[in-house]
Amino acid sequence: MVGSVKSARYELYYWPTIQGRGEFIRLALEEAGAPYVDVARRPGGVKAMMKMMGGSARTPPVFAPPFLRHGDRVVAQTANVLAYLAPRLKLVPAGDRQRTAALEIQLTIADLVAEAHDTHHPIGVGLYYEDQKAAAKKRAGEFVQARIPKFLGYLESRLAHSGGRFLLGPRLSYVDLSAFQVVCGLTYAFPEGMRRQARRIPLLGALHDRVADRPRIAAYLASKRRIPFNEDGIFRRYPELDPKEPPRG
Amino acid sequence: MVGSVKSARYELYYWPTIQGRGEFIRLALEEAGAPYVDVARRPGGVKAMMKMMGGSARTPPVFAPPFLRHGDRVVAQTANVLAYLAPRLKLVPAGDRQRTAALEIQLTIADLVAEAHDTHHPIGVGLYYEDQKAAAKKRAGEFVQARIPKFLGYLESRLAHSGGRFLLGPRLSYVDLSAFQVVCGLTYAFPEGMRRQARRIPLLGALHDRVADRPRIAAYLASKRRIPFNEDGIFRRYPELDPKEPPRG
Repeated sequence: MVGSVKSARYELYYWPTIQGRGEFIRLALEEAGAPYVDVARRPGGVKAMMKMMGGSARTPPVFAPPFLRHGDRVVAQTANVLAYLAPRLKLVPAGDRQRTAALEIQLTIADLVAEAHDTHHPIGVGLYYEDQKAAAKKRAGEFVQARIPKFLGYLESRLAHSGGRFLLGPRLSYVDLSAFQVVCGLTYAFPEGMRRQARRIPLLGALHDRVADRPRIAAYLASKRRIPFNEDGIFRRYPELDPKEPPRG
Repeated sequence: MVGSVKSARYELYYWPTIQGRGEFIRLALEEAGAPYVDVARRPGGVKAMMKMMGGSARTPPVFAPPFLRHGDRVVAQTANVLAYLAPRLKLVPAGDRQRTAALEIQLTIADLVAEAHDTHHPIGVGLYYEDQKAAAKKRAGEFVQARIPKFLGYLESRLAHSGGRFLLGPRLSYVDLSAFQVVCGLTYAFPEGMRRQARRIPLLGALHDRVADRPRIAAYLASKRRIPFNEDGIFRRYPELDPKEPPRG
């Protein structure tokens, strides 16, 4: 049944040179071994993406990448794409209770990602980092000292509540992949700040390692499909935003 | 069946002196005429809220208000609470396709709300507004000139796509209530900036009026249950952040 939603391949639309928010979706597709195309990384793909965002008679406009095309469906907003994909990829337990819990955790991770982005763009995305460096230093200081501990402490406590292996219980779900990704990203951007966290988040650290060791994830991370972190993405390594000793105050 | 989830009343937990993110949930409960308790507005309620956030053997920890207790369920993250409530309150059409579309729009509204908040707290929530006023002016300038038009333009185009009456089609859903609320909030915080938008968003303006005129919403807005906007909430009226003429640049 070519063209039916059930059999259609997944098409991911996202900026081709960064991990960004698209990476949370890539990790789910990779862990599931799902057939997908990373459209904007192909010739002409960015142009196709921009066109899709305008919508058509059949598909609604899209606010921003990432979004997914699957058969005649177009689904946007990272957490929403994951909630759409997860039952299809067997990356979330059955039942309203567990799926609600998954979305709750995913949306909290999304808040953390937005705040991580704003450490280098506190004034807005319309200005270069260089033009908002002073504000960025202040915001990053608060982020590392107060927000990272609060967010990662929350994930740690959810792991303790679920029994410690994965965030929803004994089996991996998509939120574990997302938790893995934020630990990767924060460790890239704030190695000093994260070093100071390590002892407070043993369950989360173990979860990170457990995800990294999964065969499909390990293969993906070693492949060219995994775009390296860089200073165009959400998690950026600017040493001035991650001092060895936190400022007093 | 006292105590069953189906018959249990809804308990909303949110800061008692602001509309904030809790308001999106209040509006859904009010439109549906659902029995609910705004727990933290009762004596001892904030203390009860803080205790719940720590979690227990039966309920997981909560990252931040608002959250909902319903029978033995505790559900957090505004968009997730709404996705949980909407089918129960008949505030979303049946079917995966429409519910995915609803969550996509709601999450985009959530992004707008977060950016509206950051106009007065660009450096972080740990500092007073007065200590980040210069950065706030810059961020608010970008927000009013670039972000409000982009977000509201998106909602306008979704309305055009759906036929113009409500965001998902001919019947009201919870995302229409949320769109109403952001128009209210932005108009309170940025009356000058919003005046310049009015001609660009006729469908959204009409949606706002249509929601305000619904009998239960009108009764709610006129009641003491509707907390007035104030300068402790997300949408704050600081005239210096909303100049009559936008700065050139």
